[in-house]
Amino acid sequence: MEQMFIYIVPLLGIIGLVVMAIKSAWVTKQDAGDENMAELAGHIAKGAMAFLKAEWKVLAYFVVIAGLLLGWSGTLIETSSPVIAISFLIGAVLSAFAGYLGMNIATKANVRTTQAAKGSLKNALKVSFTGGTVMGLGVAGLAVFGMGALFILFYNMFVLSTGGDVNGAAMETALEVLAGFSLGAESIALFARVGGGIYTKAADVGADLVGKVEAGIPEDDVRNPATIADNVGDNVGDVAGMGADLFGSYVATILASMVLGREIVSDDNFGGIAPVLLPLVIAGMGLIFSIVGTWFVRISKDTDSVQAALNKGNWISILLTVAASYPLIMYMLPEGELVLSRGGSIAFTKMGVFGAVVIGLIVGALMSMITEYYTAMGKRPVNSIIKQSSTGHATNIIGGLSVGMESTVLPILVLAGGIYGSFLAAGLYGVAIAAAGMMATTAMQLAIDAFGPIADNAGGIAEMSGLPKEVRERTDILDAVGNTTAATGKGFAIASAALTALALFAAYVGIAGIDSIDIYKADVLAGLFVGAMIPFIFSSLAIAAVGRAAMDMVNEVRRQFREIPGIMEYKNKPEYEKCVEISTQASIREMVAPGAIALIAPMVVGFAFGAEVLGGLLAGITVSGVLMGIFQNNAGGAWDNAKKSFEKGVMIDGVMQYKGSDAHKASVTGDTVGDPFKDTSGPSMNILIKLTSIVALVIAPHISEKPHGSHAMKETVEIKKEITYVDSKKVEKIEKIVITK
Amino acid sequence: MEQMFIYIVPLLGIIGLVVMAIKSAWVTKQDAGDENMAELAGHIAKGAMAFLKAEWKVLAYFVVIAGLLLGWSGTLIETSSPVIAISFLIGAVLSAFAGYLGMNIATKANVRTTQAAKGSLKNALKVSFTGGTVMGLGVAGLAVFGMGALFILFYNMFVLSTGGDVNGAAMETALEVLAGFSLGAESIALFARVGGGIYTKAADVGADLVGKVEAGIPEDDVRNPATIADNVGDNVGDVAGMGADLFGSYVATILASMVLGREIVSDDNFGGIAPVLLPLVIAGMGLIFSIVGTWFVRISKDTDSVQAALNKGNWISILLTVAASYPLIMYMLPEGELVLSRGGSIAFTKMGVFGAVVIGLIVGALMSMITEYYTAMGKRPVNSIIKQSSTGHATNIIGGLSVGMESTVLPILVLAGGIYGSFLAAGLYGVAIAAAGMMATTAMQLAIDAFGPIADNAGGIAEMSGLPKEVRERTDILDAVGNTTAATGKGFAIASAALTALALFAAYVGIAGIDSIDIYKADVLAGLFVGAMIPFIFSSLAIAAVGRAAMDMVNEVRRQFREIPGIMEYKNKPEYEKCVEISTQASIREMVAPGAIALIAPMVVGFAFGAEVLGGLLAGITVSGVLMGIFQNNAGGAWDNAKKSFEKGVMIDGVMQYKGSDAHKASVTGDTVGDPFKDTSGPSMNILIKLTSIVALVIAPHISEKPHGSHAMKETVEIKKEITYVDSKKVEKIEKIVITK
Repeated sequence: MEQMFIYIVPLLGIIGLVVMAIKSAWVTKQDAGDENMAELAGHIAKGAMAFLKAEWKVLAYFVVIAGLLLGWSGTLIETSSPVIAISFLIGAVLSAFAGYLGMNIATKANVRTTQAAKGSLKNALKVSFTGGTVMGLGVAGLAVFGMGALFILFYNMFVLSTGGDVNGAAMETALEVLAGFSLGAESIALFARVGGGIYTKAADVGADLVGKVEAGIPEDDVRNPATIADNVGDNVGDVAGMGADLFGSYVATILASMVLGREIVSDDNFGGIAPVLLPLVIAGMGLIFSIVGTWFVRISKDTDSVQAALNKGNWISILLTVAASYPLIMYMLPEGELVLSRGGSIAFTKMGVFGAVVIGLIVGALMSMITEYYTAMGKRPVNSIIKQSSTGHATNIIGGLSVGMESTVLPILVLAGGIYGSFLAAGLYGVAIAAAGMMATTAMQLAIDAFGPIADNAGGIAEMSGLPKEVRERTDILDAVGNTTAATGKGFAIASAALTALALFAAYVGIAGIDSIDIYKADVLAGLFVGAMIPFIFSSLAIAAVGRAAMDMVNEVRRQFREIPGIMEYKNKPEYEKCVEISTQASIREMVAPGAIALIAPMVVGFAFGAEVLGGLLAGITVSGVLMGIFQNNAGGAWDNAKKSFEKGVMIDGVMQYKGSDAHKASVTGDTVGDPFKDTSGPSMNILIKLTSIVALVIAPHISEKPHGSHAMKETVEIKKEITYVDSKKVEKIEKIVITK
Repeated sequence: MEQMFIYIVPLLGIIGLVVMAIKSAWVTKQDAGDENMAELAGHIAKGAMAFLKAEWKVLAYFVVIAGLLLGWSGTLIETSSPVIAISFLIGAVLSAFAGYLGMNIATKANVRTTQAAKGSLKNALKVSFTGGTVMGLGVAGLAVFGMGALFILFYNMFVLSTGGDVNGAAMETALEVLAGFSLGAESIALFARVGGGIYTKAADVGADLVGKVEAGIPEDDVRNPATIADNVGDNVGDVAGMGADLFGSYVATILASMVLGREIVSDDNFGGIAPVLLPLVIAGMGLIFSIVGTWFVRISKDTDSVQAALNKGNWISILLTVAASYPLIMYMLPEGELVLSRGGSIAFTKMGVFGAVVIGLIVGALMSMITEYYTAMGKRPVNSIIKQSSTGHATNIIGGLSVGMESTVLPILVLAGGIYGSFLAAGLYGVAIAAAGMMATTAMQLAIDAFGPIADNAGGIAEMSGLPKEVRERTDILDAVGNTTAATGKGFAIASAALTALALFAAYVGIAGIDSIDIYKADVLAGLFVGAMIPFIFSSLAIAAVGRAAMDMVNEVRRQFREIPGIMEYKNKPEYEKCVEISTQASIREMVAPGAIALIAPMVVGFAFGAEVLGGLLAGITVSGVLMGIFQNNAGGAWDNAKKSFEKGVMIDGVMQYKGSDAHKASVTGDTVGDPFKDTSGPSMNILIKLTSIVALVIAPHISEKPHGSHAMKETVEIKKEITYVDSKKVEKIEKIVITK
């Protein structure tokens, strides 16, 4: 019976997808408002699809070439298989499909939220949050279904059909091939997150520079050829980018836990694969409890707190997952001590595994709270930036940079505590399981994240369509909550990326066949230095790319104003698609260099200097990437809210300052600097640290330092070790006595 | 005879100090110009001494308390001694004295350079560079004399008089006590560099905000109470701060090489201590060749290139040092293989040691060249910032941040190559010797560095005294060269700090009795994360401190304008000393928090989590500190020169833009942001990474994992090791057979 348990996982994924389809159909059949609103929404939807199509065209080449290379490499060594190419393709396609689902529903839900807001806040919340839920369930459902189904396939193909060892090379091959799925997902995430980040800020800055400054037309004016690109950008960055990012984290975390689970010799009722199966089951379970949590996100009257409703749903998902994971772990894992079949780990019990799940959930919650503190209006960090805006542009910038750097302290202490705590609880498996626990309610996290930009767009449509004031007021309430969830979502995303990278790191060391990563070795230390430098050059390229891509957009808008007569008099429509394509092409062109660094650096270092130096490189990238990510996200978020604070008016040294004051102008400078920080380079750190780790995991068997193709060798070495302490100096004299093979 | 060699080192130091005294007397007897000039220079000199006095008052408490703690801790374990307190005090006093010498000569040479510039550029260069030489020889002479003399003392006290082992605990104690000297020097450097960095920018910003903006008087106007503080600040930051920084690096590098040298069992003619003695001799030799190099820094007519003269002198010092170190190493070190008496190192020959010296000198030269490229006018990085200034404040900031991040790439690759190369050449000893090689010509480096601010001050005095145009033109030529040497000096300083920290790191591991720092262990990885975060919070505190200290200065200047009647009408003199004291007090108060982090973090982590986790912490601080240092220094330098470019006029998109244009205003914003970056937080990274390493080295015996007090123990362990390969998985079965003690 227990052997059948494995089939439950894809089933849970399918349940998630069915619920998603029902909710999607419900959103689609809501009233899309009047003709004016529908036309505006139509432009945005068309633009979003134009982006996806253009992106897919470029991606197709990359995926085919990378797939062929992977397939070929899979034939080279015994612990891999050319099937990895198929796995990679499926990962890429499902990730792209998840992005499509999210963009599709977000561009439908936005205008329907506006229409619902004509009635009540309650209804507007229902429509916008249901839109977010569709995104969340789509991402999590596809991930759980894909991972679950492929695992069954590869488990049968490489282990059961060959009678291979579930702790040995047979299972290693199955999981190594499954790693292709994760690599595919993360590669698409690179394009969605980094490219999307460049896209959204290029469109934003380009539209503003020519439209508002040169042509003197308001923001979101239909005469501006770049305005659709700008609105599309919001969806591209905040919906599709975040979705692909978390899809990648979700998949990679499950994978890393499975790889480490293989190394546990487990006397269980699941044919010895309970530690491998557990992370999949936790993910599936979290998906179901996320659905349950969404039922509680509702308000009964307009004066109820939207934030409280979201929090309630979130905590119900988390607590149910914790509660259910206890009996699940007790049921699945065997009694007694568990230990990984290699050095560097400690023995633990199943109670420790449960402890690791709890630690992961706590780390996620704390990271969100800290992020909120550093970026929220009215708190000390944002207030300090507001105060420093009164003495000019430079002091505003200095204030923001200082806040961003300071904001790394608590998250790093929480992460360090989480790493250490989960290791004490359940060894390296515990670190991976903590990440899995944190990611279990990804569907719910993403629903809350995606709700924000939908509400934001809904407000924009209300404004542009000239709807009554109370409609805009209702969408504003949702939008304000969305700003908070955007910041906390970024904290969750970077924490998940960090824990995922660490779980992958632990899995990598096992596959690469090394026992330690000793930074006291000069080459490993050099790897650490080079690795830590990579997030700096990656950020530099991403930030500079936004500048260049924005200039492309500016040139295209100027060309349209010049060559298409009558745009200003509403006689001719601008060519929105051209701007969308320009922005898309620019973003894809500009992300080649950072993307290449992320993909190629681990390969070059791994093949040239070996597995341990690559380990040093990964550690450097992860540590420095997490710091640069937190620094840039929080500095950007704090600058943004410092600027927003001026809209309501702020008190500086006893004087009220409003929009248009010199202090406000200084705060706009900070906000503009913060834009690429928080929406391009900062979030792209997540992808960088995960992608380099997953690339390392995939190439690990090729750079492995253990002997391949020797399935039964035996050596006996007798060693005589003489340890002498001379002047408190330990001198070891080692003498080998006998070697028998 | 060879045993007498040890006495040569302090002798070389004394030669350096004698030459310094002669040069200092020569500068002093130069004409100090008319009464007006002398009065201006007198204010600056008096202010500088006021700063030193106020600083010393506070430092005295710190030094006494820290000395008592050190003395007490020295009684606790066998490998230390309470004498370490004396060593610490001497290090602190000599470092403070070196700072005094530099400040003293710089505040004399400035006005004499102005006077000499009335005659010719040739004479002006001679005076200003001789002033710089006094600083360089003072720092290097005191360091070589102090280290050399104390080593003789401790070698006699702990080794020769006890008949102890030169590779064992006796020599370890001698060097551990000598480490106190380095700790004393680096502690003073913390105050001089971090406090000085806060001081100079607080005075600068404070003087500008009230004087230029509020009172409408020009820069450097004698009516501004903060103007003397501003001018003092230049000396405090660029002369005393840099001097203390390099004094610390110099001493710490020699110390680390000596500590590693102790672990080499060497059959030489120096009683087995040649590897310990070598770094001292190289330093002494480099000091003499620096003196030789200074002879070549001269021009024969006003049209000769000043930069070429400096380069000539620099390269002559370097090449002579390389040439002389070959026979020196061949003479001192024994034939055959050398190897450290513990794991993690490789065997090497004396040829490899020479190779390491060469690598160190190459790394230093490359780092200076790369820094110059990223911060020089007319090169791509600065030009890109100029171009982005045309679209406003925000794009100027984005451009500078992007350049700063990009500028980390080449230095890190050079450093990583240097680490790896010097390790291959001569193991861990090679890494330390590379640092020692790079630092050998510190006297010359510092002469070139200190010449810049002297020329800068000379130009200011010429301007304020209303001297003829050609005088100012001559000092401008020197000042422009000084700007370049300031940037390259920062590159040299961070490189030396990085290599010093790595050498200390290697020495630390030996003293702490651990064999590896395995970041695959969860606690060590957590240490790495926390360590990498520390440079972020340190930078954040330093940047924020500048803001707060500047506000203190603003309040004091406002108070003087309000309470002292007749300042504006030249009837009453402002209380310059008040401003100097305010700035000094503020800077010392503000550096307590960052200083405490640097001193306390390694202690807390070391005692709470052990030696290996502390190793992870150090690695994190070093890697992240080097990156943040390079990023901030170069971003600041590039912003500065982007702004300066507007003074001559720059071409942007075919239009010439000058001072006063919108683009220039945007560039001023970048320059102001860059000020604390390049003069406060960036350079303070040097101190942070060195001080944490030296603290770790000093506490290492206390957290050591080897047995103490057991000078002769013997264990014999027989181990039977069975290695089985099952499914290409390596399974080791280890069985201990016999243990005899």
